[in-house]
Amino acid sequence: MITIIKPDFNQILKAAERIKPYAHRTPVLTSESLNRLTETQVMMKCENLQKVGAFKFRGATNAVYALSEAEAARGVATHSSGNHAQALALAARLRNIPAYIVMPDNAPAVKKSAVKDYGGRITFCEPNQQAREATLARIIAETGAIMIHPYDNALVIVGQGTAALELLEDHLDLDAIIAPVGGGGLLSGTALAATGISPGVRVIGAEPEMADDAYRSLQAGKIIPSLNPQTIADGLLTSLGELTFPIIRDHVEQIVTVSEQAIIKAMRLIWERTKLIIEPSAAVAVGLLLEKKIALSGLKAGIILSGGNVDLDNLPWQSHPH
Amino acid sequence: MITIIKPDFNQILKAAERIKPYAHRTPVLTSESLNRLTETQVMMKCENLQKVGAFKFRGATNAVYALSEAEAARGVATHSSGNHAQALALAARLRNIPAYIVMPDNAPAVKKSAVKDYGGRITFCEPNQQAREATLARIIAETGAIMIHPYDNALVIVGQGTAALELLEDHLDLDAIIAPVGGGGLLSGTALAATGISPGVRVIGAEPEMADDAYRSLQAGKIIPSLNPQTIADGLLTSLGELTFPIIRDHVEQIVTVSEQAIIKAMRLIWERTKLIIEPSAAVAVGLLLEKKIALSGLKAGIILSGGNVDLDNLPWQSHPH
Repeated sequence: MITIIKPDFNQILKAAERIKPYAHRTPVLTSESLNRLTETQVMMKCENLQKVGAFKFRGATNAVYALSEAEAARGVATHSSGNHAQALALAARLRNIPAYIVMPDNAPAVKKSAVKDYGGRITFCEPNQQAREATLARIIAETGAIMIHPYDNALVIVGQGTAALELLEDHLDLDAIIAPVGGGGLLSGTALAATGISPGVRVIGAEPEMADDAYRSLQAGKIIPSLNPQTIADGLLTSLGELTFPIIRDHVEQIVTVSEQAIIKAMRLIWERTKLIIEPSAAVAVGLLLEKKIALSGLKAGIILSGGNVDLDNLPWQSHPH
Repeated sequence: MITIIKPDFNQILKAAERIKPYAHRTPVLTSESLNRLTETQVMMKCENLQKVGAFKFRGATNAVYALSEAEAARGVATHSSGNHAQALALAARLRNIPAYIVMPDNAPAVKKSAVKDYGGRITFCEPNQQAREATLARIIAETGAIMIHPYDNALVIVGQGTAALELLEDHLDLDAIIAPVGGGGLLSGTALAATGISPGVRVIGAEPEMADDAYRSLQAGKIIPSLNPQTIADGLLTSLGELTFPIIRDHVEQIVTVSEQAIIKAMRLIWERTKLIIEPSAAVAVGLLLEKKIALSGLKAGIILSGGNVDLDNLPWQSHPH
């Protein structure tokens, strides 16, 4: 039987201990240009410099290493074409267990080969939700592998929370923390970390305008799934889950939406001024600060640069003149 | 009268104290992919994350802040279209003194505006060495500004040496340090730092095959200037100077040359695997490790990622299919 935990601050502390031998403690960097442009003192937690290039390695590693020996021997499984797939594949390889990854057959070649390079065992399926779930169910039935959901999993949530924990350990005087929100694993983990270590800190979610299900869910007081959202922030297409929604509802001050144009502008700004490669999903949090839709002027704000996985042959400003 | 110092380890320690309030202590990062591909344990000193995106800020800041009040009031001057120009402009702005920068009128717009953004006072000249020197001499005569040479200046050399000092403070067990070499400011400073703090460490210069004047100078035992070199590593076009040559001759184990193809491949590899933006000049040191021209296998090697200033609209792999 798989142990069920309640995602809370204590579990984040446990996750931090558990993943310490495997994950990078990523640096927190600053940029005077960014401070000037945002009128905020910005502390960038560089999860783009994390293993596999994204914070997702934290949650996947926590979930994999929380398994008992017997559980782990069965392997882990998920459906994802994004950073969680790579993260789970690498975490499983480190523990020397199989990772079964279900991916749509039209996933970009660069993502397929990344998962394969980390030792993931890929099963392709048709590119729709029904096929993904049916294929994953079949693989779990065949192998006995343990499903590790990309975000609606307590061990994953508290694992993601370790990024904010480290950020606040380094800078306890932050007024606010901003994290991007898709399925809400990072944002809910961030909120739990913040309430535990620094209860006064404001936790703000940054979401693409074009995939604003979390914004609408908070307004409605219930989960409103997104329907086929189109945004360049392709890590934020998913909707809030049963576990992430109530944590975000209870502990996040607000969700702020960011335009596509601001996301691309923010991404390029970070590349140019800080020499850090971030992906569009990470740029959403920067875009929030640049657009100044909420009053953060003069404050000290942490942002989680969530990842840096991009296709260098297909950058957004190559097709969007600036 | 300007104070003349001898570039040595003690002066590097002084420089470290002097620039501490202004320069970033840049992180030292690692990448398991890079270790695997190079068969070396690589510690990357991230000077691309330094202010103005390059180690040059260290030397310029040391030179500017070493001036007496009376000297400083006259301002500083240089001719450069590269990172030194930006570095000197910012260092001067921090001390609230003028920086006079002579640039060829055909310099890329992005470089002109960077210097201007940092408050540099630009004088354009025809794009040849004679015009640059004549224009600089005129400005110095008119303003009394103090010339800060990009590399053949003792304060600049020891300032650049603070990057290796920090790297060795963090990782005293390095077997080797690799730095790119153009005019030799970084490499000579690195060699002085290494011999002072860890005399056994091997110091190796990485130079583009297409601009191999330092390699040839060490072979010949005298400075052999480069004649109109053509390399993508546009920060390494200059030749060794009167101050940098003897330090490199006496303290650097060897210069290794790196092909253009290896430079571009190394640059892309670092972008993809580490999410760090580095410029071609920084990639030369990585290319040396990838090409395995000298036996470093199994060793722990520090490399100085010297800078990250690139034109995002004109990346080398856009014109070089891979």
